[in-house]
Amino acid sequence: MIEADITIKGSVCLTMDRDLTVIEDPFIAIQGERIVYVGQYSNTIEQKYLSKKEISIPNSIILPGLINTHTHVPMVFFRGIADDLPLMEWLNHHIFPLEMKFVNKEMVYWGALLACAEMICSGTTTFCDGYFYPGRIARAAMETGLRVFLGLGFFDREEDVEASARANAETAKYFIEKWQHISPLVTPALFPHAPYTCRPETMKAIKEVAEDYRTLFITHLAETKEEVEIIRERYGLTPVRLLSSCGILDERTLLVHCNWLDQEEIEILAQSGTRVSHNAESGMKLASGLSPIPELIKKGICVGLGTDGCASNNDHDLIREMGSVAYAHKLVNRDPTIIDARQVLLLATREGARALGKEEEIGSIEVNKKADIIIIDTCHPRLQPLYNPYSQIVYAANGDNVCTTICNGRILLENRRLTTLDLQNILKEVERIACSIRKEKL
Amino acid sequence: MIEADITIKGSVCLTMDRDLTVIEDPFIAIQGERIVYVGQYSNTIEQKYLSKKEISIPNSIILPGLINTHTHVPMVFFRGIADDLPLMEWLNHHIFPLEMKFVNKEMVYWGALLACAEMICSGTTTFCDGYFYPGRIARAAMETGLRVFLGLGFFDREEDVEASARANAETAKYFIEKWQHISPLVTPALFPHAPYTCRPETMKAIKEVAEDYRTLFITHLAETKEEVEIIRERYGLTPVRLLSSCGILDERTLLVHCNWLDQEEIEILAQSGTRVSHNAESGMKLASGLSPIPELIKKGICVGLGTDGCASNNDHDLIREMGSVAYAHKLVNRDPTIIDARQVLLLATREGARALGKEEEIGSIEVNKKADIIIIDTCHPRLQPLYNPYSQIVYAANGDNVCTTICNGRILLENRRLTTLDLQNILKEVERIACSIRKEKL
Repeated sequence: MIEADITIKGSVCLTMDRDLTVIEDPFIAIQGERIVYVGQYSNTIEQKYLSKKEISIPNSIILPGLINTHTHVPMVFFRGIADDLPLMEWLNHHIFPLEMKFVNKEMVYWGALLACAEMICSGTTTFCDGYFYPGRIARAAMETGLRVFLGLGFFDREEDVEASARANAETAKYFIEKWQHISPLVTPALFPHAPYTCRPETMKAIKEVAEDYRTLFITHLAETKEEVEIIRERYGLTPVRLLSSCGILDERTLLVHCNWLDQEEIEILAQSGTRVSHNAESGMKLASGLSPIPELIKKGICVGLGTDGCASNNDHDLIREMGSVAYAHKLVNRDPTIIDARQVLLLATREGARALGKEEEIGSIEVNKKADIIIIDTCHPRLQPLYNPYSQIVYAANGDNVCTTICNGRILLENRRLTTLDLQNILKEVERIACSIRKEKL
Repeated sequence: MIEADITIKGSVCLTMDRDLTVIEDPFIAIQGERIVYVGQYSNTIEQKYLSKKEISIPNSIILPGLINTHTHVPMVFFRGIADDLPLMEWLNHHIFPLEMKFVNKEMVYWGALLACAEMICSGTTTFCDGYFYPGRIARAAMETGLRVFLGLGFFDREEDVEASARANAETAKYFIEKWQHISPLVTPALFPHAPYTCRPETMKAIKEVAEDYRTLFITHLAETKEEVEIIRERYGLTPVRLLSSCGILDERTLLVHCNWLDQEEIEILAQSGTRVSHNAESGMKLASGLSPIPELIKKGICVGLGTDGCASNNDHDLIREMGSVAYAHKLVNRDPTIIDARQVLLLATREGARALGKEEEIGSIEVNKKADIIIIDTCHPRLQPLYNPYSQIVYAANGDNVCTTICNGRILLENRRLTTLDLQNILKEVERIACSIRKEKL
């Protein structure tokens, strides 16, 4: 007998491993934080394992926990507060003033908790965030049991170019030192906001620190056409070329958005191994654009998916996001074959892990990987009959069809009930803070 | 004291009436199949009503039942069976052969029941269908308590032009006579498939019958660019002009899709009062196109929303469809203001009712209208905090957030439990039929 903490049985498992193995009647065993067995169920196999917790969902699809490569989780507080507006009005007259006034440690903490609840409920087990007070976000993630890439944001505020770059580099070092060994679930990352808010000197200084610690370097890039023009005017180069000239583009750099790229820029990204976070719903809702990811993928560029913050999405549901990704590219390219359900799920799982540099640990259901696993209950009128589990997840399911979420071997959602969070209390605290925001706005 | 069958309390009601009245702390009373009171809650008001059934959901958005202006409900049996394929391959090598082989009365009945379950669970109270064996669809709708527009499909099969038109007209008459007084929930409609499968003579003959009975005339139109070319080659006219020349375009004609329209065609639709069913996700997923509905709406054309059949969507979730409608038009027009959440909700409610010619009866929450009402439980991490209920529904909610569905004064979903259907039995029967389809396909 082998001891297992959790064993799982279901009707089909999309492992998302290198061979995209699909297992009918799967059996999975978890010990501690790792997967120790994945294969087809048989009596013999099951009897080998003495399991503390048996999960058996007869009509279900088992898949790796989803990976959200771009969030600003505390922005749940701005969900729906200023929609359907021109982008610059939205940003300058609504979001920035709200942030100036309401962002504080308490707001960040409770917002992060609410977002974590939302992500657990919709099958996300890893998120890569960038916001103020990342320590509070880490605390929320640790309390809830989610895996987090904790991006520390940078903006240039100082007039002095060198001083600003130096100060930011110092902050970056301090941040990484502080967070790199706190928890196996927390990975610090450096997140200079964008080339229009951070000068090349600052970008370079932060990238140097990132390289010293082999840490992920993230920045928003080429989100809008206007941004491309601003950068070109200011530096004589497009955003990708600017970062390339700074020596910033490599396999540990994750560029968020990349909606506006020319052919040569795509080549630069491909040759440098740079990773891209695709935020389709955000680009659609703000009408900022849609990254040409079918082409990026064809060139071998690693693409993960992100929901972006709730002011521009307005949810953290990666299952819905996957559907939108497929729909948008089919429409824009006038080609229903341009991307298929399996490819999209790959972006939300294994490729998302690779975008974050964690492909050895997460992103697929394989022996020795971390046990980040979710289960979709298909006993639902929208999910029957079931012919193709990839299609069912990407085109028919939504986040609320996730019944079980396991992260790092810990059950965070069971029969749709949150196990690590007191949702009623979170909603109460969120409402208290939202009340003051509402008063200001209305 | 006034007797009421049902009273409802919630936190906010989007009435979708002519003034788009939003009621905080609403109180609604229902007697029989009609709404008898809508207003703000007060003790005095509540005490006036002696209610058999009190529904009180403290954190909730109350809105009219959603109206799906285009479905082929039995096609749930083809959900996910052939996705991500070129449109003609999908249709000719998958969907048509499957239909030839598997469509029969039993399949239509169980498929319709499954789809009804799905629609009730996601807040739809009226659907407008077109498929084979509409009698079975009516039976399913009546059993479940949903409101249905029962479209009888027509195709030209006969060589003889006149004979085919005459035979179809006879069938049309017989169908309307049979169904027009069967149930207040069932409204027959005539649905010649499309101008490329029905000759102008047939279209005209069926439209004449439709006018005799003041019945809705529905047809698929200008779904693909190729269709426009086929019609132009065959008749020397574009599809809209062809129907216009047949005298078919008026306020009792509903054109489904309309993805490919020129400026003059839009004028023709506007001046004739013709209605349009917009099927955004279907057009995106099949890459067939996206109807320019922001422009149609600006011209005063009545537009409703439809999910289309499950082979091309792959669900009947109008809440998700609303989000996709907003996203798609913002992206394609590069303008986040081109359509807003309130407008989109209007299309799925009052404008949907108008598209079907039922605006006097359904589509908004008003005294004397039929009690078609749904409630979204906002006590969910994805739906908090709540600033703008329109935004919350269109951009953050999904079908599974509907907790209560009432149609014609009857509760069909309560605390997310189906009251008129035995879901387990439906799933069992659906699986039995799906097994034979699966064997054929795999």
